[in-house]
Amino acid sequence: MKTATYLAIVLLLTFARASAQNNIVVLQTDFGLKDGAVSAMKGVAMGVSPGLKIFDLTHEIPNYNIWEASYRLFQTISYWPKGTVFVSVVDPGVGTSRKSVVMKTKTGQFIVTPDNGTLTHVAEAFGVAEIREIDEAVNRRKASGKSYTFHGRDVYVYTAARLAAGVITYQQVGKALPNKVVAMPYQHATYTDGVLKGTIDVLDVQYGNIWTDINDDLVAKLNLKYGDVLHFKIFNKGLPVYEGDAPYSKTFGDVPEGKPLAYLNSLLQLSFALNMGSFADIYKIGSGSDWSVEVGKR
Amino acid sequence: MKTATYLAIVLLLTFARASAQNNIVVLQTDFGLKDGAVSAMKGVAMGVSPGLKIFDLTHEIPNYNIWEASYRLFQTISYWPKGTVFVSVVDPGVGTSRKSVVMKTKTGQFIVTPDNGTLTHVAEAFGVAEIREIDEAVNRRKASGKSYTFHGRDVYVYTAARLAAGVITYQQVGKALPNKVVAMPYQHATYTDGVLKGTIDVLDVQYGNIWTDINDDLVAKLNLKYGDVLHFKIFNKGLPVYEGDAPYSKTFGDVPEGKPLAYLNSLLQLSFALNMGSFADIYKIGSGSDWSVEVGKR
Amino acid sequence: MKTATYLAIVLLLTFARASAQNNIVVLQTDFGLKDGAVSAMKGVAMGVSPGLKIFDLTHEIPNYNIWEASYRLFQTISYWPKGTVFVSVVDPGVGTSRKSVVMKTKTGQFIVTPDNGTLTHVAEAFGVAEIREIDEAVNRRKASGKSYTFHGRDVYVYTAARLAAGVITYQQVGKALPNKVVAMPYQHATYTDGVLKGTIDVLDVQYGNIWTDINDDLVAKLNLKYGDVLHFKIFNKGLPVYEGDAPYSKTFGDVPEGKPLAYLNSLLQLSFALNMGSFADIYKIGSGSDWSVEVGKR
Repeated sequence: MKTATYLAIVLLLTFARASAQNNIVVLQTDFGLKDGAVSAMKGVAMGVSPGLKIFDLTHEIPNYNIWEASYRLFQTISYWPKGTVFVSVVDPGVGTSRKSVVMKTKTGQFIVTPDNGTLTHVAEAFGVAEIREIDEAVNRRKASGKSYTFHGRDVYVYTAARLAAGVITYQQVGKALPNKVVAMPYQHATYTDGVLKGTIDVLDVQYGNIWTDINDDLVAKLNLKYGDVLHFKIFNKGLPVYEGDAPYSKTFGDVPEGKPLAYLNSLLQLSFALNMGSFADIYKIGSGSDWSVEVGKR
Repeated sequence: MKTATYLAIVLLLTFARASAQNNIVVLQTDFGLKDGAVSAMKGVAMGVSPGLKIFDLTHEIPNYNIWEASYRLFQTISYWPKGTVFVSVVDPGVGTSRKSVVMKTKTGQFIVTPDNGTLTHVAEAFGVAEIREIDEAVNRRKASGKSYTFHGRDVYVYTAARLAAGVITYQQVGKALPNKVVAMPYQHATYTDGVLKGTIDVLDVQYGNIWTDINDDLVAKLNLKYGDVLHFKIFNKGLPVYEGDAPYSKTFGDVPEGKPLAYLNSLLQLSFALNMGSFADIYKIGSGSDWSVEVGKR
Repeated sequence: MKTATYLAIVLLLTFARASAQNNIVVLQTDFGLKDGAVSAMKGVAMGVSPGLKIFDLTHEIPNYNIWEASYRLFQTISYWPKGTVFVSVVDPGVGTSRKSVVMKTKTGQFIVTPDNGTLTHVAEAFGVAEIREIDEAVNRRKASGKSYTFHGRDVYVYTAARLAAGVITYQQVGKALPNKVVAMPYQHATYTDGVLKGTIDVLDVQYGNIWTDINDDLVAKLNLKYGDVLHFKIFNKGLPVYEGDAPYSKTFGDVPEGKPLAYLNSLLQLSFALNMGSFADIYKIGSGSDWSVEVGKR
């Protein structure tokens, strides 16, 4: 009986810890996978706790592209369990005055990152529950004092691993900051008099599809049925780059090969594509705050 | 004593479940790793069961290339333990009438995929033990009702994770279908009067080697010794593209640098290569059902 | 009580095994991730023991580039826990007389590899505790007898998995060899009369930075303060390719965008870069034993 009680307590403690942090760490960088940098980060995490489960978001963020780092986090984190700890290291200002922080979203995920704009989309979409500055006096890998340039390994992933494994609590990350992140300015999606405006958040790079920040609730204001034709314009820094029509479609197969369609992507945002082709490549379309769209019913 | 009995039962149940499905999920897509799509899939799987072990086959299948998706599964699945659940999402017909299925091979692996030709090679090589259509009324991620285009995340990996973790049995995937998959037509390997014919299944892309579907049993009909010279022709849509000689070799080092050789690859299929060079790049050779070979002893 | 004792013993045995080998396997190849080769290797490892934790160092070593394979191991292994088993398969001489070995470093990591130069940097930097030749009579995957060309899967990862999981001891790998690896000759870093000489070990490929083998102890002989200007020359096969000045900097942000800087990288080696640009691309700089540098104070 006593043994059973013991076991029950051990199991309970194990689960109690798991409910706060869940041993899952997800990494995002602009390092690529050609060298050993990402692997060294994972080795440091394994050294903290062999029970961690380590995953990649992507390591192919274009160099120094904070906008895309921000967007990829937004696109992904809600599909992971509460307690998951994300690390995002896209850090053109390494060594400058940007703060190293761990943000907790209102949906219960943690993000370890330089506070340099990387938290823009996530803070807006999921809300800031709390944000703490990493105290490097305690949350820094030992024997790395002489190394100046690899915060990703010696501070960020080290802190993330300790947090995910329950070696430290969220409070032990460091002192709480005001609930406000460094945010990049961008054109938000709007509806006015039958016209939707918005930003091209990102390209669905593998296929060349155009993803805007206009969500399904705004799209609903156009009262569309599948098959209705939309007229849309794409601008770069305010100058027109493309103008054309596309049917609002349920699936890519609704239009002939090579023809444009409008659809809601898996994030339920208005998107444009060519069936079996790359809209972005053929019409030279990019993404980020310089790229905007205007859309109305034909 | 009672505690020990309890523990024994728990352990037995754990192992019993493991013997059917083994908690291993292996993912293949044409999504690439630049965005968050694959990571979102893994997050969904972790949400189903944190005990899952998730691996990648590849995410660099050329866009919409069902032939290659089929071939990569064939090339890989037999090296994984029985009970492993593969997910393959190369789906140009998303939203059309192709069925979403889970096939069980006669060798005991599961493949979750649209039935669009992706199962061609595996069904032929390993046999169809059973095939079931995914019942999306139950096997679909909750709160994803409004999202039309990401079956990979909301149906395929969700179902795979639940199957691999033992949350559902194979029967609970959905109703059984006839043991027949959608198969792509292709030229099978043959031997007639001293001549081998076959298809170039795939390129060993990293090195530019040519892999045919002519296996070691057919090759044996030529009664080759290492060092014997083969004469071979390569055709694209029936038109000759390359003609030359190559010694049948045990290792690449058997020929000088830059020279052609014939060998059995790791799948024991007749293959052609240049030692320290790319046969495919230099002679512009491709793969798939349009590319065939003829081979005889010099 | 008896049950508790039993459990204690089981736990102790589990930990005892873990302390020798730690169930972690890290893979490096030049196979890329487009085909199923790496996945087949992971499947074989899972078949040996589902408790293994399998990671990637990189699979994008340039084809047959043993120098870079050697360097990437050196760059990474010290960040992984003792007992971690690395597999490196960059093997232009597959099938020739190079030996298949498992080296144990003095820092407690294992490396499974062809002894073809891949161990050059690691042996020098971390020391050879012991080196054993793989006895393929026992350490070879069953039912792979007919396959000649995939040692990576059938011997290397199979042996690594069994070693990491404690299925075999290090002694059971095969007979001990003399503590000497096949080493590639290269120019070592030196300091003479105010001039540092060294080799460009590798490019930080993602950013195009230049990493030399001149470490912080040698750099210290120049008595530098941040802001001091260095004059440096880069040679290819002894011929000058670039000559210029760069301030010794703590962070990239210390110089304007597009300007050169000198810094210590995360391995504490003297490195050169352009802030927000690619030094290697713009000035056509490569790496390996053909590329050397000379550096002095301005």
